Amino acid sequence: MKPLAECRVTVVGMGLMGASLCMDLTRGGFCREVRGVARRTDTVLEALISGAVDEATNDVQTGVLGADIVILATPVRTIVNTLEEIGPVLWPGTLVMDMGSTKAEIMEAMALLPEGIEPVGGHPMCGKETAGFAAAEPGLYRDAPWVLAPLARTSANALELARALALAVGARPLVVEAQRHDRLVASISHLPYVVASALVQAVAAVGAEDPLAWQIAAGGFRDTSRVAASDTHMFIDILMTNRGAVLEQIASFSTQMETLRVLLEAGDEDALCALLGKAQALRVAWKSKQQL
Amino acid sequence: MKPLAECRVTVVGMGLMGASLCMDLTRGGFCREVRGVARRTDTVLEALISGAVDEATNDVQTGVLGADIVILATPVRTIVNTLEEIGPVLWPGTLVMDMGSTKAEIMEAMALLPEGIEPVGGHPMCGKETAGFAAAEPGLYRDAPWVLAPLARTSANALELARALALAVGARPLVVEAQRHDRLVASISHLPYVVASALVQAVAAVGAEDPLAWQIAAGGFRDTSRVAASDTHMFIDILMTNRGAVLEQIASFSTQMETLRVLLEAGDEDALCALLGKAQALRVAWKSKQQL
Repeated sequence: MKPLAECRVTVVGMGLMGASLCMDLTRGGFCREVRGVARRTDTVLEALISGAVDEATNDVQTGVLGADIVILATPVRTIVNTLEEIGPVLWPGTLVMDMGSTKAEIMEAMALLPEGIEPVGGHPMCGKETAGFAAAEPGLYRDAPWVLAPLARTSANALELARALALAVGARPLVVEAQRHDRLVASISHLPYVVASALVQAVAAVGAEDPLAWQIAAGGFRDTSRVAASDTHMFIDILMTNRGAVLEQIASFSTQMETLRVLLEAGDEDALCALLGKAQALRVAWKSKQQL
Repeated sequence: MKPLAECRVTVVGMGLMGASLCMDLTRGGFCREVRGVARRTDTVLEALISGAVDEATNDVQTGVLGADIVILATPVRTIVNTLEEIGPVLWPGTLVMDMGSTKAEIMEAMALLPEGIEPVGGHPMCGKETAGFAAAEPGLYRDAPWVLAPLARTSANALELARALALAVGARPLVVEAQRHDRLVASISHLPYVVASALVQAVAAVGAEDPLAWQIAAGGFRDTSRVAASDTHMFIDILMTNRGAVLEQIASFSTQMETLRVLLEAGDEDALCALLGKAQALRVAWKSKQQL
């Protein structure tokens, strides 16, 4: 395979993730050419005018023609459809990557790509609350873990090229099997979203009777509910493509809630103290490791 | 009653809330004298040396002698005990306030104060994650809602003096009945804490089998779990003194979680989209009001 510096790279999807990646690739001069594909014509123009890409189009089949690396940066189910659509027009040897939040359905679709194509699933862990081209920024991937999930058919050289691309933009590539990835993100990302949304609904029930609730809500509610403000359609796509793992995490969480509820109802202060103290210690330990 | 400027003020408890209040009162010169009571002798010395108070002692009965205003700024159950202890030594006409996080038990204890004492329950809504004298800072109360809960026996003048004190340090006094207060904070503060703690436990169960969970945990987990790092003993005190209201909110939250779970299990994308979209809109609307 060609080295990254000689590759033509096509990024499909000019949202936060895709456009930020293009900015880093063009500014750093890490590859021969950066092409962007966006659905809406004004995003195509924005990407071109801002200099985030060298070329841009709203036709995905045109966009991937002649590309050495194709990176799909749209919602999960759009990635699955795009894989079907572009398969027949890709050059043999093309590295096909994605940045989707769940991997199971994408890996299945990648397995069906024509022989000779080199698929590597991926997920850079660097979301923001904001979305879209306007939220894109250079440096988004700096120090972010970038999960790479090769298929059985993927060559070592293709995985190496994917890793080189992640390293070029400052990310920390990490090879993780797809099912393991999906279970982990169900726990650390999808569950918090569902929990935050349920919390907003519960507070809203009180707030509907007594609007003072919203007025005096402060830090605790603000932090715990923040991810509920995320893009709903993006998260529905995530939940629907990771249902099994998310349902498992909801069940685990609900067991923890029920344990705390029973102890509180019984007024068992010692047991409550032990459990809440353990959660406190775990959270503090995690935070201090994050800061290393 | 004397105007605030002529009052001797004793603050019992030199943690974040009590010490920050003393700093504002002494720096602003809002009253005749500021006295601090702390349990530990080194906190007494710290408070004195830092200039946060004019006088300090670790004996609460000495501390409140001759005070025109006594403000209890310790955990809720300590406040209840202190009220019993100081009742007999207070001057008639003394304004007794508190800064406890739940009001029901404190209001009961305040009702038992000797005749002539003027009790006003209170709760400034300005917690931080950090606690203790070292975390105290001037300006903590600026723009914070400060709930005031007078008793039936409280005179209008006493309530007015409590309000003047809150206004002096920049807070926004708000008269709220104690039971209503407790229900509101169960929803916007105590429920988020329990939820965050259960979330940490659920993620820890995954992390125990696969430590990579902790490594890739990012924004969603960080925000949603943040309050789980709060002081456990402080929160146990809060939960145990607000059990009924907290249990009610846990039940309401669990119903919301179950609704989301059932919809996800059924793959009912439209209904999920409606519910999650509603939570998103509520959270965004709340945030934009906060910023006004």
